[in-house]
Amino acid sequence: MSRQIRLAARPSGEIKDSDFELVEAPIPDPGVGEFVVEVTHLSIDPAMRGWMNAGRSYIAPVGVGEVMRAGGLGRVLKSRHDGFAEGDLVQGMFGVQEHALSGGAGVNKITPADGVSLPAYLGTLGMTGLTAYFGLLDVGRMEEGDTVLVSGAAGAVGTVVGQIAKIKGGRAVGVAGGAEKCRMLVEELGFDAAVDYKSDDFPAELRHQTSDHLDVFFDNVGGEVLNLGLTRLARGARVVICGAVSQYNNAGPMSGPSNYIMLLVARASMTGFLIFDYADRYAEALEEMSGWFAEGKLRSVEDTVQDDIAAFPKMLGRLFAGQNTGKLVLELTGAG
Amino acid sequence: MSRQIRLAARPSGEIKDSDFELVEAPIPDPGVGEFVVEVTHLSIDPAMRGWMNAGRSYIAPVGVGEVMRAGGLGRVLKSRHDGFAEGDLVQGMFGVQEHALSGGAGVNKITPADGVSLPAYLGTLGMTGLTAYFGLLDVGRMEEGDTVLVSGAAGAVGTVVGQIAKIKGGRAVGVAGGAEKCRMLVEELGFDAAVDYKSDDFPAELRHQTSDHLDVFFDNVGGEVLNLGLTRLARGARVVICGAVSQYNNAGPMSGPSNYIMLLVARASMTGFLIFDYADRYAEALEEMSGWFAEGKLRSVEDTVQDDIAAFPKMLGRLFAGQNTGKLVLELTGAG
Repeated sequence: MSRQIRLAARPSGEIKDSDFELVEAPIPDPGVGEFVVEVTHLSIDPAMRGWMNAGRSYIAPVGVGEVMRAGGLGRVLKSRHDGFAEGDLVQGMFGVQEHALSGGAGVNKITPADGVSLPAYLGTLGMTGLTAYFGLLDVGRMEEGDTVLVSGAAGAVGTVVGQIAKIKGGRAVGVAGGAEKCRMLVEELGFDAAVDYKSDDFPAELRHQTSDHLDVFFDNVGGEVLNLGLTRLARGARVVICGAVSQYNNAGPMSGPSNYIMLLVARASMTGFLIFDYADRYAEALEEMSGWFAEGKLRSVEDTVQDDIAAFPKMLGRLFAGQNTGKLVLELTGAG
Repeated sequence: MSRQIRLAARPSGEIKDSDFELVEAPIPDPGVGEFVVEVTHLSIDPAMRGWMNAGRSYIAPVGVGEVMRAGGLGRVLKSRHDGFAEGDLVQGMFGVQEHALSGGAGVNKITPADGVSLPAYLGTLGMTGLTAYFGLLDVGRMEEGDTVLVSGAAGAVGTVVGQIAKIKGGRAVGVAGGAEKCRMLVEELGFDAAVDYKSDDFPAELRHQTSDHLDVFFDNVGGEVLNLGLTRLARGARVVICGAVSQYNNAGPMSGPSNYIMLLVARASMTGFLIFDYADRYAEALEEMSGWFAEGKLRSVEDTVQDDIAAFPKMLGRLFAGQNTGKLVLELTGAG
């Protein structure tokens, strides 16, 4: 038998354990052109909260009663598909389940390089890294010498954004929660500065660390951090909207940035993007990032928790409480 | 003697009469390289409210005790400047005063074309028209076939935006306050539809009139109209932030658009701009717009009030109450 986590109810505000249910199902049998994956790692992402809501979004919501959507890694257990053989290491949207049936759409084979941990293929060398790369360089049009502010800087995408900003010759300023995360950003990842949004003097400190104003503001969190960052825009600045993790658990509307009119004052833009639109350029980006990785310029920061699939709701709670550093990954221990 | 309106106090929230004072001063005498303008028409603009506030903006605030900033038209009364002769009709930032001393910076001579009223040179064929033109075509990158939503549609900039959208082969939908303004937009200016934001079924009506979603949203008003418009964006839509007239009189912060995250869902952008940045392209735009004007494709909608300079504060109140249709101009009767 195989276990899976299904959406039991649409949450209002904070996620409750009862919004999910753990269900046992037979391990699926592949038909012609299909294969079965034994899932080993689950990517725990802020976007998951949005997938649980009804309403217009960029992707259909997970239906109540359906297996919860998730990206992950796994090994092909049994295959009747010409492109995938038993034992292949694969990455794809396998869902929160121990075994997934796939026809191959959106699934990539992975050949781990020396010294690269498997979770890195969900993080820095996976969708997370691609999000940072295209968000900063394409949407944000970052150039050498730019000052880049990134919020959620100690999170999965944020750690990569700041490092790429440095690689590309910019000044990287991170916003994160707590002194330890801020220390890590500067001392371990090479950010020029990190500002603690939980500190009382956050507004003054942000102003101090961005005295030359911001050319790019890569926002993962929304709320007051977004609103305050808008007051620091340089002329022609680009605000990149990647997410709004501080707002996803609101039962009511999000907090809107009252300082949006600074876009006018600064002749600036605020642009949203979705990484899926860059699919035809993933390979080019991964090649460049793998190079930086091999040269030691880009580090992967992972927060891998080994636990049972039943721990999934707790892992989501951990993410929204800001308790992770870098990419949060659930490595399944009870599979098979 | 000459009369002028000076800023007496920085308003908090709504403008009060006591925020201005009427002062008499001698008519200035031009030095070498200077000329004196007898001001005949004052442009009454939403941006004036921002100029009265302290704090970071795109232009220094008007100092308390200084003549209130305003664009206007006038005739050269006396000149010691080689480029301007007595009797020349001129446009510039002359301030709220009957006579202005100028060194010529930012002043343009105007040769009225047949059938064009003088106030049109403050409106459709002046800064207002230029704002509509570059905001829609350059910032908004409007293309043939696009659906364009414009808020404040019956205002100075809005009336021009909708007409240019039609000329360029788009579908123009206006948002305005009241049935009469909406009727005027459709019947007299050729908008495809106009939605009354004061009506109870405004959200449903907006949804109905934008069932194909918005490619460009030209926002002059902010607040709830902006927020609702954000839910109607097509993929890749451009939101142009031209102003936020509904919010300028707030004593506290502006209302932030809680639906800004729709920028992410729609992979859309929101961009602020200032017309001054397009100064080197004014001539090209005015030539094209004058052509449309002569062909009868573009109409100038003016709301010209003939009154004394002392009426200026009342005129601003009229603007913020949404009582004008098209360009609000104060034609001075007491000058000279």
